[in-house]
Amino acid sequence: MILKTIQLYENDPSVTLTAYILDDSPEMLNGKTRPAVLVCPGGAYMFCSDREAEPVALCFASMGYHAFVLRYSVYSNGPAPFPFPGKTPVYEKGVFPGPMREIGMAMLKIREHAKEWHVDPDRIILNGGSAGANNCAVYAVSWNKPFIYEYLNAKPEDLRPAGAVLGYGVYDCYRMQKTLEKLGDRGRIEQHKGFCYAAFGCAEPDEKMLEEASPVFHVTKDTPPMFLWTTREDDVVPMTQTLVMALALEEAGVPCETHIFENGRHGLSLATQATASAKEQIMPDVSLWIGLAQTWLQKHFPLELPDKCPEWVPPAELF
Amino acid sequence: MILKTIQLYENDPSVTLTAYILDDSPEMLNGKTRPAVLVCPGGAYMFCSDREAEPVALCFASMGYHAFVLRYSVYSNGPAPFPFPGKTPVYEKGVFPGPMREIGMAMLKIREHAKEWHVDPDRIILNGGSAGANNCAVYAVSWNKPFIYEYLNAKPEDLRPAGAVLGYGVYDCYRMQKTLEKLGDRGRIEQHKGFCYAAFGCAEPDEKMLEEASPVFHVTKDTPPMFLWTTREDDVVPMTQTLVMALALEEAGVPCETHIFENGRHGLSLATQATASAKEQIMPDVSLWIGLAQTWLQKHFPLELPDKCPEWVPPAELF
Repeated sequence: MILKTIQLYENDPSVTLTAYILDDSPEMLNGKTRPAVLVCPGGAYMFCSDREAEPVALCFASMGYHAFVLRYSVYSNGPAPFPFPGKTPVYEKGVFPGPMREIGMAMLKIREHAKEWHVDPDRIILNGGSAGANNCAVYAVSWNKPFIYEYLNAKPEDLRPAGAVLGYGVYDCYRMQKTLEKLGDRGRIEQHKGFCYAAFGCAEPDEKMLEEASPVFHVTKDTPPMFLWTTREDDVVPMTQTLVMALALEEAGVPCETHIFENGRHGLSLATQATASAKEQIMPDVSLWIGLAQTWLQKHFPLELPDKCPEWVPPAELF
Repeated sequence: MILKTIQLYENDPSVTLTAYILDDSPEMLNGKTRPAVLVCPGGAYMFCSDREAEPVALCFASMGYHAFVLRYSVYSNGPAPFPFPGKTPVYEKGVFPGPMREIGMAMLKIREHAKEWHVDPDRIILNGGSAGANNCAVYAVSWNKPFIYEYLNAKPEDLRPAGAVLGYGVYDCYRMQKTLEKLGDRGRIEQHKGFCYAAFGCAEPDEKMLEEASPVFHVTKDTPPMFLWTTREDDVVPMTQTLVMALALEEAGVPCETHIFENGRHGLSLATQATASAKEQIMPDVSLWIGLAQTWLQKHFPLELPDKCPEWVPPAELF
């Protein structure tokens, strides 16, 4: 494995791309490129959760994909714990569309190293949970728009993601606000205001801002295929977010596999001990999502292998 | 992640311990140690297979365990392709009990770095397939014998493995020879002679040598719990090897979980694209073993997590 962390801005150590590049072998791909998964951790645009970073990347690496973790610009400008939004100034770099443009920067960085790392830059799959899923999904519907590719001085085709594997994401910020108001839990509403303060620079963004950061309104035939999962008991990001995203994809003719588990709270990541802060975040039923995602990825992005192994014929005389 | 490769002998670059040390986080173990899995690749003591090295280590890493790959002394003294045994001199360092003692050296090296790496040195689990499984199993029944601990100038308790996850292993070399003679396939018999030449220094070892390298004869109550798996269609190492090992463990009162899949050839490793040389080595039914092993490992060697996450109470006034 090659393990390398690259700063995306010269003078900002908080925005990094960490590469987990698999060793090749004459016994395995023998020089062929591999697809890659770019992991964007969640954390309400307030921080990048370690629980949704390295352990998830290692799962994709164990499937035979090169893996990357992008720590994009967030309100805390570093790891948790962090000051709660509203008490400190807005962090402009973390406001929409900043974090999304950094996905584009990461895509270009991977493409730049593609030959060295044996990556197929046309088969980069995005992954994220919660705000990370929002960031990936917004990017997935925006990669071919001038506000991304002109800003990055890049060709749109060099920015195209090949797919996305997204968990418990925010896909319709406008509906999200309405759903939470209806549910009426003050804690959840305050949390959402924190998310808005971090993501939009104000606790109560106007409709236009909410609409811009809502991928459901921007899905086209150029949006890549997606694998979406969530849990019905999630009371931070309601599961209806996943349903409306699946609906938008289906109506645009974009393939989408969707899994909504009955139980499980928000932010379970792998739902195993590998990503748990406490035992209550270990849920064997929910943890099945990664196996389903593996099957989906192998179907859409298989490694290029021959059908048969070479036949071994014993020499005439050995001993 | 910390990624580090350490030579176990100063002047031999072919024998290495590669460490895949997981990042800790205040969101996860917050300073607590983790168990580790030490992966010993198979390859008939002729080489160390890349297909049973890094990709398997990454699976254990994705479960929340630190992972290590030990490339022990083997006949080829390097990667495949290699000269077939019998045509070149015996490689003394790779002859029994050399490779097994190197597992002990790796255990001591991990213990030496335990504090730095946040490893619990009393919870190191061995993993291997085929000859790697033989090496691990022989070590697992020998760690407390003078020919290991005196040779390594170590206390036996510092060498004790906590468990073993072994695939399609050789556990009774004597029976193995008899089974292959009965089956009568010349290619398989020649392969076995190659294994013997590499492992014992001669193509037709005597009964005493075979018995010494056969863990079934040496299981005691000090042998750690094991997870064994194989496939019934394996015609290189017959599945009866796994049955007699499970029998020996059960009769000594050592817990053992055993899975024998109906289909699948020898050496499937993960049985996914991640470890395949060709598509015919991808078998979704057999690939279930790693999930079963994960459940077994989490039962015997759970990460030390609190029951509940801290409750988040929103401050009185946020915005």
